[in-house]
Amino acid sequence: MSLSPFDHPILSGLFGDPELAGLLSAKADVAAMVAFEMALAAAQAECGVIPHADAKAIARLETDYEPDFEGLQVGLGRDGVVAPELVQQMRKRLVGEAASSLHFGATSQDVIDTSLVIRLKSITAILKARIVAVETALTRLSNQFGGRKLMARTRMQDALEITVADRIADWAAPLARHRRRLEEIEMRLLVVQYGGAVGVLEKLGDNGPRVVKALASRLGLGVTEKSWHNQRDTIVEFADWLSLVSGSLGKIGQDIALMAQNVAGDVVLAGGGGSSAMPHKSNPVSAEVLVTLARYAAGSSGTVAQSLVHEQERSGAAWTLEWLVLPQMVLAAGSSLVIASRLLDSIETIGQD
Amino acid sequence: MSLSPFDHPILSGLFGDPELAGLLSAKADVAAMVAFEMALAAAQAECGVIPHADAKAIARLETDYEPDFEGLQVGLGRDGVVAPELVQQMRKRLVGEAASSLHFGATSQDVIDTSLVIRLKSITAILKARIVAVETALTRLSNQFGGRKLMARTRMQDALEITVADRIADWAAPLARHRRRLEEIEMRLLVVQYGGAVGVLEKLGDNGPRVVKALASRLGLGVTEKSWHNQRDTIVEFADWLSLVSGSLGKIGQDIALMAQNVAGDVVLAGGGGSSAMPHKSNPVSAEVLVTLARYAAGSSGTVAQSLVHEQERSGAAWTLEWLVLPQMVLAAGSSLVIASRLLDSIETIGQD
Amino acid sequence: MSLSPFDHPILSGLFGDPELAGLLSAKADVAAMVAFEMALAAAQAECGVIPHADAKAIARLETDYEPDFEGLQVGLGRDGVVAPELVQQMRKRLVGEAASSLHFGATSQDVIDTSLVIRLKSITAILKARIVAVETALTRLSNQFGGRKLMARTRMQDALEITVADRIADWAAPLARHRRRLEEIEMRLLVVQYGGAVGVLEKLGDNGPRVVKALASRLGLGVTEKSWHNQRDTIVEFADWLSLVSGSLGKIGQDIALMAQNVAGDVVLAGGGGSSAMPHKSNPVSAEVLVTLARYAAGSSGTVAQSLVHEQERSGAAWTLEWLVLPQMVLAAGSSLVIASRLLDSIETIGQD
Amino acid sequence: MSLSPFDHPILSGLFGDPELAGLLSAKADVAAMVAFEMALAAAQAECGVIPHADAKAIARLETDYEPDFEGLQVGLGRDGVVAPELVQQMRKRLVGEAASSLHFGATSQDVIDTSLVIRLKSITAILKARIVAVETALTRLSNQFGGRKLMARTRMQDALEITVADRIADWAAPLARHRRRLEEIEMRLLVVQYGGAVGVLEKLGDNGPRVVKALASRLGLGVTEKSWHNQRDTIVEFADWLSLVSGSLGKIGQDIALMAQNVAGDVVLAGGGGSSAMPHKSNPVSAEVLVTLARYAAGSSGTVAQSLVHEQERSGAAWTLEWLVLPQMVLAAGSSLVIASRLLDSIETIGQD
Repeated sequence: MSLSPFDHPILSGLFGDPELAGLLSAKADVAAMVAFEMALAAAQAECGVIPHADAKAIARLETDYEPDFEGLQVGLGRDGVVAPELVQQMRKRLVGEAASSLHFGATSQDVIDTSLVIRLKSITAILKARIVAVETALTRLSNQFGGRKLMARTRMQDALEITVADRIADWAAPLARHRRRLEEIEMRLLVVQYGGAVGVLEKLGDNGPRVVKALASRLGLGVTEKSWHNQRDTIVEFADWLSLVSGSLGKIGQDIALMAQNVAGDVVLAGGGGSSAMPHKSNPVSAEVLVTLARYAAGSSGTVAQSLVHEQERSGAAWTLEWLVLPQMVLAAGSSLVIASRLLDSIETIGQD
Repeated sequence: MSLSPFDHPILSGLFGDPELAGLLSAKADVAAMVAFEMALAAAQAECGVIPHADAKAIARLETDYEPDFEGLQVGLGRDGVVAPELVQQMRKRLVGEAASSLHFGATSQDVIDTSLVIRLKSITAILKARIVAVETALTRLSNQFGGRKLMARTRMQDALEITVADRIADWAAPLARHRRRLEEIEMRLLVVQYGGAVGVLEKLGDNGPRVVKALASRLGLGVTEKSWHNQRDTIVEFADWLSLVSGSLGKIGQDIALMAQNVAGDVVLAGGGGSSAMPHKSNPVSAEVLVTLARYAAGSSGTVAQSLVHEQERSGAAWTLEWLVLPQMVLAAGSSLVIASRLLDSIETIGQD
Repeated sequence: MSLSPFDHPILSGLFGDPELAGLLSAKADVAAMVAFEMALAAAQAECGVIPHADAKAIARLETDYEPDFEGLQVGLGRDGVVAPELVQQMRKRLVGEAASSLHFGATSQDVIDTSLVIRLKSITAILKARIVAVETALTRLSNQFGGRKLMARTRMQDALEITVADRIADWAAPLARHRRRLEEIEMRLLVVQYGGAVGVLEKLGDNGPRVVKALASRLGLGVTEKSWHNQRDTIVEFADWLSLVSGSLGKIGQDIALMAQNVAGDVVLAGGGGSSAMPHKSNPVSAEVLVTLARYAAGSSGTVAQSLVHEQERSGAAWTLEWLVLPQMVLAAGSSLVIASRLLDSIETIGQD
Repeated sequence: MSLSPFDHPILSGLFGDPELAGLLSAKADVAAMVAFEMALAAAQAECGVIPHADAKAIARLETDYEPDFEGLQVGLGRDGVVAPELVQQMRKRLVGEAASSLHFGATSQDVIDTSLVIRLKSITAILKARIVAVETALTRLSNQFGGRKLMARTRMQDALEITVADRIADWAAPLARHRRRLEEIEMRLLVVQYGGAVGVLEKLGDNGPRVVKALASRLGLGVTEKSWHNQRDTIVEFADWLSLVSGSLGKIGQDIALMAQNVAGDVVLAGGGGSSAMPHKSNPVSAEVLVTLARYAAGSSGTVAQSLVHEQERSGAAWTLEWLVLPQMVLAAGSSLVIASRLLDSIETIGQD
């Protein structure tokens, strides 16, 4: 038993999701924070808030600046957020006025929340594509085996015969709804955070709204009327969606584990996990893991929802709670989708003639 | 300390919500189940599935049938669901063919889930109106006190001065999103359940889709392509929404409790709870209770999400879990909204000149 | 779907637990609060803190005082706790000095927490007896069927043959540990709460420790060195225990539901729930409900644990959260134990010859 | 935002706990699994189950065997558990009979659960020492500042004056109970797992109990009458304890964050975190993080408790859930203790003269 299974030397063999783990890594986080600072400078130059020359100097940080991760770690331990040290490191690469133009009117939360949102934009695109992949696997399965017979079971008891297509339809229907939900959520979630120290952009005067719009446009994000720094409903809504996705896949996993019982024989899976004591066994490991991830995501959604009580203009306690839970939930859902596709593709036969 | 605080002889003084508790009562549940059976018979007569005379006889059950609750309790204990005994009781009031036309092609879950959805339609309307009421109270407050000064606080420390209007805007913004979300959710949630024993309406032949449409139309509900009996994402999505609402109000409550600290003096509340040991104190009870309900709803959302792993064609275990959690979450959110309005109206002054 | 299933007109047919629900009722709560006040007065008279005559007058409240529940409800709504109004009502029945001797040096939390602990003493005794009853049923089952064969299943797959006794031993072992745990927990849990306004018994001077001991002795409870008003670890520890009990029974329920599958045929249950669409079916309702209650209790333990963050000398927010969760957890565990005994007794045969 | 904060390149600056993270690493896990296999061979040789020569050959694996982590990762992905591949790798280093004597009569779960328990023995010792360290810091603080005055606050309102010692006593009391609890839990938790394929040691005949005892004695662990493979109450009980510890520290953190408010001024902290927008601020980051970890641990305890429903002789789904949650909970509690000590030591003054 060890640390996070999603980037673990051994457990990642089962749960690993290098694509999403990459987007959630410290490296990607810092890169997105740098991107925020560059886009902010460009937007502020565009709006006449800082000199164009400063924005140009800042733009060069993309290649000039190499993060000192050890320093960032120390800074995080001191400040509770990485941004002050990061800005400090970046400023050291700048000369003259440009240093004070960097991060102008911004606060740590602007950088950190927007970095998250930038990466969530890529993440939601990946998740959407993976849902489609599972749906495609289900359609293929239904095309191949849909006409075969299956004993429907209610309350764990034999009920009436249905077709394989009937059950697959029950597996597929929530996935289409999840895609629709994500579209709705993205409108609220993929929104820039830029509010300054206390959310009112006090240093920008009348330029605030214009800069926010220009910044958002450069980052391909939406805007809200006012900074959402202490309104965490969009983050928790997304976490809840991740739990819904994991849960629907957990239902598929639970069904397949039951169908794969020797006494049921409703499905035959290629591969399947071995046992150190009974090498003949073929365990429906992937099916079980979908159940695991569903229960994990369900419980996690209840934990991260505690962060809605985000007091005053910024709660270190509530905000940090998101950092502990959300990335793992992204990986649980992402990993579930990969495993579900793999599991469905491993079905050699399902139902009875 | 006692049973459910939402209909408790003493605790309901604080949490009570007779309007929503009424809709979630056993009486309202049975009434909606009867309404389902009558609408089903009418729809089936309309589609030529049962004789019109039977539907007419069944329609008379609205007044002819008086539920024997003791019998229903015994039946629930025996069958795990109330519907078999309820249908039995109703059939005793019918003569001849009408008895077998009642509940034709339906299963317990059809009756019970649709009864829930019928009442959720009323419940969501009430919740929406209550959100608007909280928003109105916030607008009123902002109009009256918005220009006053308030010390913004980040990480529990004094930051910079903002206006009262700034903070109220942060309280209000999520509420507008919650209304929007509810509209999206209602499209998926307020949908009839009618699938028969295993979700394929095996007794209706080709008439299935037509009857479903006619039934849904009579009940003012939507339809899904296939019965959603073992797809519980819409229920959990709604529970998550309830938690989002409670959470946003919990943030308001936490802020007001902090503002009401004697050392802060940022808000003066009329009333406030007394203490048996220190009669001079004025406790921000309502503000604290909003935090309580937010934490309760957050945790509950993680519990009810476990029911997404709803195995096969019907899981008694997963389905029953919804019954234990969802009603309390409705009441937590509903009660939060009432308390929030009351709390905001009790604000005598907020911020500094 | 309706309010708390544990005292619900219909659902109590399945979940009802009148014995424990009685101990958690408002009536029993008030009675225990009155008992606290009488014991406190007697203890204070014994220690010379109040006149013996006052204690005698207060002792008569047991019969003289009839709670006005409507008034208590209004008081709770106003004060956030029932005690101020309750003390007020009791004082109206007293004349002269006795009125001010009542509740001397006490605060609401003293009355309310100690009322809970008094009733938990009865509750833990009942739960212990019920665990023994389940163990007895398991022993009986093992004596009768223990030698029969059973296919052991790992990861849902047939593994090797074991005996029925082997599996029953796995069901029984945690129950013995739960009894042991409860004994350990009782030492910490069944402790009087009496600390006054802020936990230091400021009105009692040097008499504090003596009064606490005398009070505890009269109530048959233990003492702590200092009031535990804002240290909620014993409450949460007990809630965790309730979840452990429910969880171990949920495992039995899940096993029996799997064994009762038609394709497995490892167990035959008498009775079993009917279906409104398939009257021939015999559903393992009780087995499923054990799973439901286990998942409910598990999630609830995570919710109530949030109340450990109980700020300063008394947190209305955290304390009230306990009221919403703990009683339901007591009933979930209590109900699980009753259902488990009933389920085990309904086993007609288990395993194969 | 990134992966597990407890071993994260940046976040570990705040949450990092290299000592415990080391014990939970894949490397330590494999080392403990190897230790199990060697102790098992030695115990079996001692009991005459395998030849002494084989045990000697196996003992040399401690130095001879170098884990191929890439292979273990692939094996885990295939089998759902690491043990089959690990045993395979070890067997390649053995010649002749010794290969089949390795892992004799054992199953994957024996290796994996016992590896966890071996490391939990070290972990609980570390946690105990850290609790003592926090208690020592509290005593020191009380000695230095205990006589100073502090405004007690109930329901966020000024109540009566107490002393600093009074509040510190409320912080300390649960810690002593946590140590006592841990002693009780260790008796149940630190127990060897060795049951073979389905928990009955079917390959050992009458030698089972003797081998278990010899094995346990070599590992410094206790024994149970029968393998506890599908009885997970001891694991969840320990997780609950971790949550209790984190929760009690979260209460301290919440109190200090409130005391550190500028308007309260009840405590002065050295250091404190900076802000990128307001460099003058001194944020009580450590205090807030204690609240974060308490809420995280509370929610996680509710998630891991779902694994009590561990069906039949081995549930891949339930068991794997423990792997996702327990290590993070160990680190949350461990990290909380380190942070609490540091925070208490950073108190420059507390209370008023």
